[in-house]
Amino acid sequence: MLFHVRMDVHLPPDLDPDARATLLARERDRAVELQQSGVWPELWRIVGEYANISIFDVSSNDDLHDILSSLPLFPYMKIQVTPLAQHPSKV
Amino acid sequence: MLFHVRMDVHLPPDLDPDARATLLARERDRAVELQQSGVWPELWRIVGEYANISIFDVSSNDDLHDILSSLPLFPYMKIQVTPLAQHPSKV
Amino acid sequence: MLFHVRMDVHLPPDLDPDARATLLARERDRAVELQQSGVWPELWRIVGEYANISIFDVSSNDDLHDILSSLPLFPYMKIQVTPLAQHPSKV
Amino acid sequence: MLFHVRMDVHLPPDLDPDARATLLARERDRAVELQQSGVWPELWRIVGEYANISIFDVSSNDDLHDILSSLPLFPYMKIQVTPLAQHPSKV
Amino acid sequence: MLFHVRMDVHLPPDLDPDARATLLARERDRAVELQQSGVWPELWRIVGEYANISIFDVSSNDDLHDILSSLPLFPYMKIQVTPLAQHPSKV
Amino acid sequence: MLFHVRMDVHLPPDLDPDARATLLARERDRAVELQQSGVWPELWRIVGEYANISIFDVSSNDDLHDILSSLPLFPYMKIQVTPLAQHPSKV
Amino acid sequence: MLFHVRMDVHLPPDLDPDARATLLARERDRAVELQQSGVWPELWRIVGEYANISIFDVSSNDDLHDILSSLPLFPYMKIQVTPLAQHPSKV
Amino acid sequence: MLFHVRMDVHLPPDLDPDARATLLARERDRAVELQQSGVWPELWRIVGEYANISIFDVSSNDDLHDILSSLPLFPYMKIQVTPLAQHPSKV
Amino acid sequence: MLFHVRMDVHLPPDLDPDARATLLARERDRAVELQQSGVWPELWRIVGEYANISIFDVSSNDDLHDILSSLPLFPYMKIQVTPLAQHPSKV
Amino acid sequence: MLFHVRMDVHLPPDLDPDARATLLARERDRAVELQQSGVWPELWRIVGEYANISIFDVSSNDDLHDILSSLPLFPYMKIQVTPLAQHPSKV
Repeated sequence: MLFHVRMDVHLPPDLDPDARATLLARERDRAVELQQSGVWPELWRIVGEYANISIFDVSSNDDLHDILSSLPLFPYMKIQVTPLAQHPSKV
Repeated sequence: MLFHVRMDVHLPPDLDPDARATLLARERDRAVELQQSGVWPELWRIVGEYANISIFDVSSNDDLHDILSSLPLFPYMKIQVTPLAQHPSKV
Repeated sequence: MLFHVRMDVHLPPDLDPDARATLLARERDRAVELQQSGVWPELWRIVGEYANISIFDVSSNDDLHDILSSLPLFPYMKIQVTPLAQHPSKV
Repeated sequence: MLFHVRMDVHLPPDLDPDARATLLARERDRAVELQQSGVWPELWRIVGEYANISIFDVSSNDDLHDILSSLPLFPYMKIQVTPLAQHPSKV
Repeated sequence: MLFHVRMDVHLPPDLDPDARATLLARERDRAVELQQSGVWPELWRIVGEYANISIFDVSSNDDLHDILSSLPLFPYMKIQVTPLAQHPSKV
Repeated sequence: MLFHVRMDVHLPPDLDPDARATLLARERDRAVELQQSGVWPELWRIVGEYANISIFDVSSNDDLHDILSSLPLFPYMKIQVTPLAQHPSKV
Repeated sequence: MLFHVRMDVHLPPDLDPDARATLLARERDRAVELQQSGVWPELWRIVGEYANISIFDVSSNDDLHDILSSLPLFPYMKIQVTPLAQHPSKV
Repeated sequence: MLFHVRMDVHLPPDLDPDARATLLARERDRAVELQQSGVWPELWRIVGEYANISIFDVSSNDDLHDILSSLPLFPYMKIQVTPLAQHPSKV
Repeated sequence: MLFHVRMDVHLPPDLDPDARATLLARERDRAVELQQSGVWPELWRIVGEYANISIFDVSSNDDLHDILSSLPLFPYMKIQVTPLAQHPSKV
Repeated sequence: MLFHVRMDVHLPPDLDPDARATLLARERDRAVELQQSGVWPELWRIVGEYANISIFDVSSNDDLHDILSSLPLFPYMKIQVTPLAQHPSKV
């Protein structure tokens, strides 16, 4: 079941550089892990913004919330979820 | 080069049923044709809305505008285009 | 799987009264049928508005879109869908 | 009398971890207490957000305000209240 | 129980003048009747707009919806309802 | 001359508790004083929000600005003023 | 007493040309009359828009509403009124 | 003096095809004429929209309004004007 | 050439009181100086807000930007500029 | 390939003055370098705002994102990118 997810990252400008580097490394590791598991098939950067557009493929709403809230950057992101359905004209 | 496109369709409620059926058939044919050519790799329905989210893969901005404005529903759609870039954490 | 759905109805003011009465009767029948099937467990009127807030319990995003687009009033409604998850403090 | 309530939580990123843990524990206790008293019959997490959608069943507007402002997280939440009425098509 | 209600009127510009005059006379009669019954204690025009701000004093949400939807102008108004509570500094 | 005023209070979360208590006591005193003088005839809490809706009865725009900016919470409030006129259907 | 008023004109595109010309002539006459009476001291066109920004100098809110609703274009305008006060740095 | 102008075109869907073709031909002629005169140095299509972004180089605000309101499509466009100044980092 | 300018002031709540007093005194001096020079003919307070509406009379866009960015409060203000033209019905 | 880019700068008010001066000098150097390379052909200040409107001429979306995120002010800017196409009426 597919969901369209937009994530906008807002890191505090006075975040300690080491804490920031550690946080971003953990986020990258978690993102790789989730992609390899198959639940995060698409991930794009929005040009000019610290934001991404993603497609998630999960078995339920609860799964999706567990995945998104497991991201190390979760407390620093505004996330919008849009449920997707099969389009009748899709080849 | 990838672009995220959201299209919201607003057909006039008093459109003649035959004109409407013809218009939608032409839209479907054009959508199939564009998907088969490879420029429209993803197309999803937004749940509960007469709207879609799509990914287009084109060689230039001009190409994308030519494609979108060639859609028979173009005069009846609100279209928002977001340019996408490679995400550094993409596997 | 639960979804929160808000529907705002916008009927054209010049709709023929008979066509309108028929449309609303068909909507009511379909709403009753869907509630009795168990997929539409909650349905409330928003005070002062021609709008409702509903909870749907469906097995997939595709099911939800099929249900919503089967409503006779679908062409006259603005629908917003919000996926819900279990809340950790829910008793 | 039913009310639809959406609560969005905005905790300061630099909140002391112990103060935060205590605050959240108190919020959970109060939420459980209110649910058990019957005034908070529904409580859902919005997928991907630190936010909930709730239904409250209270005897008056004043009761609802007293309940919401008694929540330990009240100073950190944006709350929107929508009064609900019986829907004519509700089974 | 008090509610703050804002009503914005949007009459179709091509409404037949007689139908319009009849509609407005019926609205005025109903507004007078409701005020005399005590449920509509305050009613003000917003300067420069075809809109009003009102206070309603009703026994329940259902009562308020019945009253508002009984207004002859109801199909032509956008209505926003805000529940009010006692203010702790009110003399 | 009547004005509708909505005030939303935004106190900094790290305000010193004593300073906060003093500020709120001064605000309450000033609100009582203004109500007793007759310029602030109505004051309601918006359910679920740290906000009020008020009616002011003043002799000029300058009076109203002097009154509002004399409130101890003025630097912490977002204030919206709407001029009101007599409604033709008011009983 | 001064008020800032913005008026946006929305004439129906299918208005009969003669009716339109008559309406605009009446609007111009009324605008001249009001300016000459002293209640409408400033009137500017917003560049690129069918809209104006005006200053009105009236004795009360009721006066202002009577004046604005006497404009022949009133049914075709969206009007926003902002009360003005003396600025402490005004020379 | 430079101004940034965005124009969004909204033609009525039921415009007579001949009237529409004539209108668009007149718009094109006027756009060419204005560009050749030097006041409209830049003109771009926004990808996916019936809208343009333009730069105008005029001697005054009044000139700009005269130019924009001389466009045959003026009654069908929403226009937003943003004044531009020299940027200190411009080479 | 006339411009409509709205300025909303947002001073940090923890600004040092002396620094704040100095800043406001410098702003007042600069405002007086600019008014006396003739470029700032109108200046009003918006009732209930820490904001003003002004009219500037300048010879170019660059002049206006130089003037606005010379204000000591410039770093603390949100400024919106609207170019004005002669209105055809202005007496 | 042309893109319209709007950048709004939001520097923290408590940024150390030296750090701020260094940051702005680096931004200016980078802006000059990019303009000289030909990818940033237009750059204007928006009158009254700490913001610019720019045109970029790049070979791909990825190029544009690399350029924008290389700006020293990137962490302090809100950036909106709009893809541009050839306009059919462009001379």
